[in-house]
Amino acid sequence: MSSTNKVLLEKIHQEIPLSKAMGFNIIELSGTRILVEGPLDENINIHGTAFAGSIYSLAVLSAWALVTHVLTEQGVDADLVIARAEIKYRAPVKDTIICFCHLDEAVIQRFLDQLSNKKYARIEARVSVGIPEAAYLNITLFANLRR
Amino acid sequence: MSSTNKVLLEKIHQEIPLSKAMGFNIIELSGTRILVEGPLDENINIHGTAFAGSIYSLAVLSAWALVTHVLTEQGVDADLVIARAEIKYRAPVKDTIICFCHLDEAVIQRFLDQLSNKKYARIEARVSVGIPEAAYLNITLFANLRR
Repeated sequence: MSSTNKVLLEKIHQEIPLSKAMGFNIIELSGTRILVEGPLDENINIHGTAFAGSIYSLAVLSAWALVTHVLTEQGVDADLVIARAEIKYRAPVKDTIICFCHLDEAVIQRFLDQLSNKKYARIEARVSVGIPEAAYLNITLFANLRR
Repeated sequence: MSSTNKVLLEKIHQEIPLSKAMGFNIIELSGTRILVEGPLDENINIHGTAFAGSIYSLAVLSAWALVTHVLTEQGVDADLVIARAEIKYRAPVKDTIICFCHLDEAVIQRFLDQLSNKKYARIEARVSVGIPEAAYLNITLFANLRR
């Protein structure tokens, strides 16, 4: 992992203690995609599979970390929060929870342009959980430029 | 809290370790309603308010615990999982996260009847977070009778 990504991971662990309790880890992060994981043991439920809340939280953190990385790379200082999200669980996750999120460059550019023009902007992302996909999350993030 | 509720809380803490890390606590639980809480400190985010993943997880656990309680009271042995959920964040949660869920008796009865007839059933619930409401969750739970 690059040192920039390590800084982001450490910031998340430090400022969101639950991310550390979940064993949130960034495996891969670029300007358009992120792959994260959380071990099953820390995130297990009553059925011996991954807890629905952990799946959701890791998926949300994926999207949040990717967009935060995009903003950092662009030197944009903005607050980024979750506005809404919808998750569908299709099958139990029986091993390490893997989340993958990809953003089109055009979507990122529209988001950055809107943020620059209006001082706030929304961006939508889809996070896929598991290989093959066991759950997916559709999420809307909201960014507000800091003055 | 009644001893039945204490047993349920201890079971959740033991079998879903993340619930303990979040400080998940049942304040009130009856046959149709539940009130739960999680302290801000364990669930804080980068903005000093409640982490979106914690809000979601506590809300999901509220609905799951309430329906589990209903099944236990009826002597029904079933696996209960989350099928899908949608959450909307309207305002930051700046203090203890409080989740409230109420189910109509008619909705519960229809769920129990379907479970008895078909061996599986879905139930929908709405969980309100914060007073005044800062977020809400619409969730669908799926129950499967154990043979």
